[in-house]
Amino acid sequence: MTLRFAILGAGRIGQVHARAVAGTPGARLVAIADPVAAAAESVKVAYGCEIRTIDAILGSADVDAVVICTPTDTHADLIEKFTKAGKAVFCEKPVDLSVARVKACLKVVEANRGRVMVGFNRRFDPDFMSVKAAIDAGTVGDVEMITITSRDPGAPPADYITRSGGIFRDMTIHDFDMARWLLGEEVETVMAAASVLTDPKIGALGDFDSVNVILRTASGKQAIITNTRRATYGYDQRIEVLGSKGMAQAENQSENRVVIADKSGFHSAPLLNFFMTRYIAAYANEIAAFVAAVKDGTPTPTTIHDGLMALALADAALKSVAEGRAVKLAEVL
Amino acid sequence: MTLRFAILGAGRIGQVHARAVAGTPGARLVAIADPVAAAAESVKVAYGCEIRTIDAILGSADVDAVVICTPTDTHADLIEKFTKAGKAVFCEKPVDLSVARVKACLKVVEANRGRVMVGFNRRFDPDFMSVKAAIDAGTVGDVEMITITSRDPGAPPADYITRSGGIFRDMTIHDFDMARWLLGEEVETVMAAASVLTDPKIGALGDFDSVNVILRTASGKQAIITNTRRATYGYDQRIEVLGSKGMAQAENQSENRVVIADKSGFHSAPLLNFFMTRYIAAYANEIAAFVAAVKDGTPTPTTIHDGLMALALADAALKSVAEGRAVKLAEVL
Amino acid sequence: MTLRFAILGAGRIGQVHARAVAGTPGARLVAIADPVAAAAESVKVAYGCEIRTIDAILGSADVDAVVICTPTDTHADLIEKFTKAGKAVFCEKPVDLSVARVKACLKVVEANRGRVMVGFNRRFDPDFMSVKAAIDAGTVGDVEMITITSRDPGAPPADYITRSGGIFRDMTIHDFDMARWLLGEEVETVMAAASVLTDPKIGALGDFDSVNVILRTASGKQAIITNTRRATYGYDQRIEVLGSKGMAQAENQSENRVVIADKSGFHSAPLLNFFMTRYIAAYANEIAAFVAAVKDGTPTPTTIHDGLMALALADAALKSVAEGRAVKLAEVL
Amino acid sequence: MTLRFAILGAGRIGQVHARAVAGTPGARLVAIADPVAAAAESVKVAYGCEIRTIDAILGSADVDAVVICTPTDTHADLIEKFTKAGKAVFCEKPVDLSVARVKACLKVVEANRGRVMVGFNRRFDPDFMSVKAAIDAGTVGDVEMITITSRDPGAPPADYITRSGGIFRDMTIHDFDMARWLLGEEVETVMAAASVLTDPKIGALGDFDSVNVILRTASGKQAIITNTRRATYGYDQRIEVLGSKGMAQAENQSENRVVIADKSGFHSAPLLNFFMTRYIAAYANEIAAFVAAVKDGTPTPTTIHDGLMALALADAALKSVAEGRAVKLAEVL
Repeated sequence: MTLRFAILGAGRIGQVHARAVAGTPGARLVAIADPVAAAAESVKVAYGCEIRTIDAILGSADVDAVVICTPTDTHADLIEKFTKAGKAVFCEKPVDLSVARVKACLKVVEANRGRVMVGFNRRFDPDFMSVKAAIDAGTVGDVEMITITSRDPGAPPADYITRSGGIFRDMTIHDFDMARWLLGEEVETVMAAASVLTDPKIGALGDFDSVNVILRTASGKQAIITNTRRATYGYDQRIEVLGSKGMAQAENQSENRVVIADKSGFHSAPLLNFFMTRYIAAYANEIAAFVAAVKDGTPTPTTIHDGLMALALADAALKSVAEGRAVKLAEVL
Repeated sequence: MTLRFAILGAGRIGQVHARAVAGTPGARLVAIADPVAAAAESVKVAYGCEIRTIDAILGSADVDAVVICTPTDTHADLIEKFTKAGKAVFCEKPVDLSVARVKACLKVVEANRGRVMVGFNRRFDPDFMSVKAAIDAGTVGDVEMITITSRDPGAPPADYITRSGGIFRDMTIHDFDMARWLLGEEVETVMAAASVLTDPKIGALGDFDSVNVILRTASGKQAIITNTRRATYGYDQRIEVLGSKGMAQAENQSENRVVIADKSGFHSAPLLNFFMTRYIAAYANEIAAFVAAVKDGTPTPTTIHDGLMALALADAALKSVAEGRAVKLAEVL
Repeated sequence: MTLRFAILGAGRIGQVHARAVAGTPGARLVAIADPVAAAAESVKVAYGCEIRTIDAILGSADVDAVVICTPTDTHADLIEKFTKAGKAVFCEKPVDLSVARVKACLKVVEANRGRVMVGFNRRFDPDFMSVKAAIDAGTVGDVEMITITSRDPGAPPADYITRSGGIFRDMTIHDFDMARWLLGEEVETVMAAASVLTDPKIGALGDFDSVNVILRTASGKQAIITNTRRATYGYDQRIEVLGSKGMAQAENQSENRVVIADKSGFHSAPLLNFFMTRYIAAYANEIAAFVAAVKDGTPTPTTIHDGLMALALADAALKSVAEGRAVKLAEVL
Repeated sequence: MTLRFAILGAGRIGQVHARAVAGTPGARLVAIADPVAAAAESVKVAYGCEIRTIDAILGSADVDAVVICTPTDTHADLIEKFTKAGKAVFCEKPVDLSVARVKACLKVVEANRGRVMVGFNRRFDPDFMSVKAAIDAGTVGDVEMITITSRDPGAPPADYITRSGGIFRDMTIHDFDMARWLLGEEVETVMAAASVLTDPKIGALGDFDSVNVILRTASGKQAIITNTRRATYGYDQRIEVLGSKGMAQAENQSENRVVIADKSGFHSAPLLNFFMTRYIAAYANEIAAFVAAVKDGTPTPTTIHDGLMALALADAALKSVAEGRAVKLAEVL
């Protein structure tokens, strides 16, 4: 059996998923939808699929699953519609910027026994999977402290920031999910500090560009997350897990493995600079995991609940910054 | 001119300083004091100095400077006495566990125009000095975010913990000083989370073993500090400074530089496991800097004020843990 | 224009090239030939091409180019036939085990103005390309000394060794080509030492498993090559170029970038263990370069002449081992 | 018992050994000899020893051991004299530039039951000792192939080169000793290639600046040595041992452990640039090992025989370059 896909949205991330679907054995890209004709056309040409409207896809008997890559404010509605139509759904994060809306969506999905996976691609990065495997194998012992360093090479455009819900909901949300996944225990309290250091325009939009967060679980496990919108040396994505027996670290990925030595010392390449390059394997693995779960009838590895929890952590962080205190996750859920 | 030293206290750190003084050109170790005869004797034998009482040293015309390595609760008194006696003083951190007492001591020192340096050895580590030099040279641009990873290989004995003032005043205090030094701007607010994860006995003593701290300056610069009392792989001492132009990282020091490769992969040695090995160069540089400052009549590179500020940051961190909120440094000073 | 390919031979390397052709924009896999029906069928299924005989392909108007992946003793004949038939030819190394036969083949190709590229995949590895680019950009200055470390994880089966022409013609040949490419000057003399250290069966077959070679050009530039058939820690592929201004090193590729630290030290993954994984990007780049050269009418980046020179270096190395002396390349050409 | 030393020669290497002797527990520097008064004086001032003539030292009852740091052409004579006088002798390499002279010296020493250690400092480098320990512990299995990369930052002055016996006897000699030590089996044949690439003046003096050597033992173990007189990035000293179970590598030592990341990538410091800095621990360990052997009456870890074998390997390499062939060690011994 081949899982037949349609992709809703042919923007940057839609194209990433189109490529992933096309390259996944047992999956086939049937249709692409996008109001921008040129965007849809480029996916059609590249992967040989049809262009259809979202409504047409909703009624397409030859589509088993959809990948939602439309603007965030349409995600929850589309999840509900396609779940009701019996399609398996893969939705890019976030489900919505409102915890209440995500909760409502989750209820609809549950009522319809829908199958929805939320796109936390980093869980499928081979290096981060190795870290998780080391934890699960007991190699690091009991997890105690996690350090997540996550720095973008540059800030997104102003109009993206405006719609993004702010750095915690747009950028840190990946790290919140990573922390939950690796801690193996839900976070109880959140402390965060936030600054505007790289560009005053970001502050003018009401957002931050430099944040640090401390997460703490009920049993005392802790995670720290450090984010910035500007790392001149590339897309800095590191994870470090300290446990009772040792530590597991996932190091960065560089553009190449060449070292140049000269009078001034040793020089190596900057980091892979863009999420689509850095996480190319993660995106492929993510779609493959979705396909496998749908085919096997097993739970998807990430769910709307995961999206909800990560969003709540973002809300708690924002509240912590605003009120200068440790915020319990329960306060925002 | 040779600076003639006496060392007060022949314990572990006293011996470190005896070695440093003996190895510093322009310095000479004249006397050692310790109520434990065997300890004093071992320093005498190793470095050819005399054994004297503290009182005798106070009156010794052939002693220009003292290094205070006695228990913490004697530090402030000794600083005051020896300053009044006109001796230059190098005192191990902390000056005292009470901010009020440190302030009082500082007043006495100032009234006597005393010269006192406080032992923040890490500022003199060659790698950390290189990081600072990179900042000062503008190589990383404006400092924005600092990450300090500081993990001990194992917890000290229970009686040490009891007298230590707790992890923030005993262990994190080094990182607080490092953060101040590298941020180049005083900290305004402190947020901290603390847990007991490695040994419940530490909790029974009213202390923590696993802490994370976020420091924020008025202009928004931030530093995070992550501490644990147990890192199985050695004494983990890393610093990372992110600035507008780039990043400077000081990496760990291993027992050797040998890599063994076999079927299971690549293996290298644990980290240098003890502060006296890891910071051997720092201790030497520190005493050399003290000698140079005293001889040249220039300010000592660290002062009681630095000790005061680091202690206040520790108090603020403790208050943040207790009250679950961001604490302003001004609240505890 | 799309370049239409047939692949001759559906064995391991034939499948590597099938994948590369299928993934190259502007190329299309039209046909596969293999006497083993199951092998041909698997390529047909995977890439949707037809199964044809070699003779049929020779006469196929819808085939512009062939990739020769048949046994070595058929290479030269096939190159001549397909060149005469006006097809562009990509041939796996070696062209033949006999210098004389390769020379004869080259004459036929030249007489027919054929376009033939020989598969030295490592020239297309992104890291090695970066090293070459550093040389070409003058970053390392004048090239003086090259070190090539090239170790297989394990020996091939006995029947492969029997047909391979021996380690110099089968394994070192890649390093000979790499050395020529990076030295930028033809080798004048060859010295080699060879041993059987990993498995006496290899010696029983008249081959070696552990060899070192020194190459020297007329102007005195030198390259050393160190080979073994058994590196327990994976497929070790390193290159180091020393020049008047500095050094360029291409480091190994590991299975992942995760480091585990524990009481015994720091541990990371073995190297990528197989040429098809290690050089996956190189194989793709190689076919893309062939397609580009054929389409643009420019010279192919590697030629039969390159195959000839690398083979002659292998012959010289073998003669050096046999006679215990430095052998001039001119003696075997 | 304290071993009382005199040092013959207060040049660069003499000062290195003076420092090592002064810092070795159980050793004491009694006297220094040097025809250049200022040189002798500086050692006297630094370490508080007396200045004596070599003849006076020969008759000094308060001197148990001498370190010979005089010009090479005096080494063998001094070894013989001081051995006859019953002093323990530590002599800098080489014993002499002539194999015959070294053999004669060895006979005299044996006749007098003298105790002579030859200064192959690298055997006492902590990292190389770890590699040797890994071999001895069986960690790498049976040793098969060794790669020694040994590059000086710059060539010595012309007059030094003239007296040095050439690069093989002056520089490679260290690597020959290292290879013997690590192979655990005597070398049978030597192949070498040599060029003048960094400075034609070196060629005008009849020497080379860029050499590669292959050593092969009777059982087929091999070692390659690559040397240059100019590595712009510092003093490059690496060792790699491949065995049946795995590999042990000793990596280089840099000036610091700081990494700077910026738009152009990651940058770290050049290597420690000078043998006295790079091998400071090795020189200390070497003298400590000499002191221990003399006190305990055990064999010195290195001997005149080691000096003889390393010199013979140098002669064989030179012969190999001259005659373009593999030279048996037996031919030059």
